[in-house]
Amino acid sequence: METISENKAFGGTQGVYKHRSDATGGDMTFGLFLPGEAADGPVPVLWYLSGLTCTHENAMSKAGAQGWAAEQGIAVIFPDTSPRGEGVADDEAYDLGQGAGFYVNATESPWAPHFKMWDYITEDLPDLVFKTFALERDRQAITGHSMGGHGALTIAMQHPDRFASVSAFAPICNPTDSDWGRKQLGAYLGADESKWAPHDATLLMRDKGFDGPMLIDTGTDDQFGDLLKTEALAHAAALRRQEIQLRMQPGYDHSYFFVSSFMEDHITFHAEALYSA
Amino acid sequence: METISENKAFGGTQGVYKHRSDATGGDMTFGLFLPGEAADGPVPVLWYLSGLTCTHENAMSKAGAQGWAAEQGIAVIFPDTSPRGEGVADDEAYDLGQGAGFYVNATESPWAPHFKMWDYITEDLPDLVFKTFALERDRQAITGHSMGGHGALTIAMQHPDRFASVSAFAPICNPTDSDWGRKQLGAYLGADESKWAPHDATLLMRDKGFDGPMLIDTGTDDQFGDLLKTEALAHAAALRRQEIQLRMQPGYDHSYFFVSSFMEDHITFHAEALYSA
Repeated sequence: METISENKAFGGTQGVYKHRSDATGGDMTFGLFLPGEAADGPVPVLWYLSGLTCTHENAMSKAGAQGWAAEQGIAVIFPDTSPRGEGVADDEAYDLGQGAGFYVNATESPWAPHFKMWDYITEDLPDLVFKTFALERDRQAITGHSMGGHGALTIAMQHPDRFASVSAFAPICNPTDSDWGRKQLGAYLGADESKWAPHDATLLMRDKGFDGPMLIDTGTDDQFGDLLKTEALAHAAALRRQEIQLRMQPGYDHSYFFVSSFMEDHITFHAEALYSA
Repeated sequence: METISENKAFGGTQGVYKHRSDATGGDMTFGLFLPGEAADGPVPVLWYLSGLTCTHENAMSKAGAQGWAAEQGIAVIFPDTSPRGEGVADDEAYDLGQGAGFYVNATESPWAPHFKMWDYITEDLPDLVFKTFALERDRQAITGHSMGGHGALTIAMQHPDRFASVSAFAPICNPTDSDWGRKQLGAYLGADESKWAPHDATLLMRDKGFDGPMLIDTGTDDQFGDLLKTEALAHAAALRRQEIQLRMQPGYDHSYFFVSSFMEDHITFHAEALYSA
């Protein structure tokens, strides 16, 4: 693992690191904010999964998470959204290929060799960070924005007992029924839609739900609102009696201005779950 | 109007009053909490509509609203849930007739002569209380529990510009598609289901929504959860991009223990809307 940069921030350290990933078969870069408390021993950790076109860097710079995380004594991990670099397939569209890994393990050509973001986020990167940094494996929570909200919700529901809480900002809620999803799941996983179902938060909510609290914020003026299908997850969660706070936030759009506006609420929400876990 | 009782409470007054109602053609009883500030001039008002089997008295005694209302300087009105007394029709079932007015104007026999709770809550009682007490007609909000949540949501959506905010505790959300609704709407309004639609919060959400913030709390262990159809309203609200906080509260049931647990949140929510109105 190589240290790209480390900056003091809010009494802790905002680092950027590069490492070789077996899952994606190449180098991956991630950000990690460690609060000051990490100097004295392991701290709880919040995973933040980013959306389409993002790298590890966008949320690290624009989501405003570090100040609140410092206040709560929580680390935040900012992974990249896809493999990158020479020999890694790509597409001209912004919503497929590099920057658009969709948090699945691709089985189809040309994506299969490197696009294993599910394994990267759930196995590879955890193995590295829990071995390397002062982080508590028993106190994890997960959040994300848009495609990253989709990743957070599906990974949380598919890993019972791993995460104390899950939240999302404007998540893609029902990708098997949306243009943000059908194209990508088809490209990465093939035409057999039964392979898509494990990566659809609404279908997972109908099937199993999440054993812990869930918080979702989505703006009423989200320019991609029709693609998110918030209504499908809202229906499934209420029907299941899932512990959830679903908030349609008036006037907010899909941007990081929206994300940062509610970051305090999300970090506080996760801190409460993490410290009672 | 006759004063039944007045008790000092939280620096203000909890009163119970009886008056002749033109709408229901008989005497009606209601509770009114006036905070101390009402001695100096009109205060904002929150309507609290009760559920099946309740009178004006249940919420007044058990919902724990007065302390928070006093803190915010807000009055709370607790109307009865149906006409009562000699000559008023009734049914042996707990969910039809007296104590179960469903906040509609009955057109069918034997209910039509007295069961005009829609007019009572939206015209008759407002005329009386704004004439009689130090209440601001321009600063109203509305909430309710179960059948009263149904009343609050439908009345709020049907009276744009009257209420700054609406909330509900475990509301009946989709009565045209529930055993808590089809029986009563059929009995009071007749078999023509087009007459039911104006009294269904989910259908109103699809049709028009509410121009202001909405807060709904429902327990995940609500013993009547299947009858509430929270999922239908959740879907409609998210699809409409309604400004809403929908919270499924883990472990809570349908009782006043649930209502009182979240009363502070609801009064605070309404106060914020009322004082910025």
